[in-house]
Amino acid sequence: MEFEKIYIASDHGGFHLKQQILEHFTEIVSEDFGTNNPETPVDYPDYAQKVSKSISEFQGNSCGILICKSGVGMSIASNKSRGIRALLCSGDTDIARFSRAHNDCNVICFGADFISYKQAMECLDIFLNTKFLGGRHQVRLDKLL
Amino acid sequence: MEFEKIYIASDHGGFHLKQQILEHFTEIVSEDFGTNNPETPVDYPDYAQKVSKSISEFQGNSCGILICKSGVGMSIASNKSRGIRALLCSGDTDIARFSRAHNDCNVICFGADFISYKQAMECLDIFLNTKFLGGRHQVRLDKLL
Repeated sequence: MEFEKIYIASDHGGFHLKQQILEHFTEIVSEDFGTNNPETPVDYPDYAQKVSKSISEFQGNSCGILICKSGVGMSIASNKSRGIRALLCSGDTDIARFSRAHNDCNVICFGADFISYKQAMECLDIFLNTKFLGGRHQVRLDKLL
Repeated sequence: MEFEKIYIASDHGGFHLKQQILEHFTEIVSEDFGTNNPETPVDYPDYAQKVSKSISEFQGNSCGILICKSGVGMSIASNKSRGIRALLCSGDTDIARFSRAHNDCNVICFGADFISYKQAMECLDIFLNTKFLGGRHQVRLDKLL
């Protein structure tokens, strides 16, 4: 496992997939920032920013899991924070691997309406256990705004 | 068509899909920022930043198409620019539609090794022709950093 802490959050549309992931990962998720009510609409940037802030402030390797209906809003909102590199994960395990090996991603976003629990867990397992390769990939990360 | 100008760019890994899209869209792509040589490695942030800058500077509706091997690097790099909302498009046409209707995305990123030309063109057609719905979605966009 590449991370010392894992943070998770979702909006109302991602609540149920968040709970399913939490049931499996009770012991390894450090903090659940909500939402805790799928019937009250909330704004995804608020939740993306809570996770991004925690990753930025932790003095070590940490990562985030963010879920909304399509995953698009969460991936945009989290990438706006400096030092956050977020993948919108479609369920492709090779892309999940490259997002760590080549892009050193520290956030994985899921679209709850577009990915199965099994696909999400497979990608998450790869994401959490793949090392960043550095080298020419670090040169590119250093050019990010 | 929702955009007055379309900019396109790729790194070496996305060159061939960029050329295929350009062959179909010769008349509607306003500017191709390269790369023009698939055999010389380049850094994706340089190309994402050229497209993002052009979108930000144009006084009207414009959008960008960015391509690398997985699409991940381009989607991270472009989302770092203020005012850019980039989708990493896996080929799902519903997500392409929501990315415009709900997230007002102005950049679409493709992973050349993971999407067919036909899937990319279908999603692009939807992306270019779907209106942003505003309302509660605008409230959320206003919270982006």
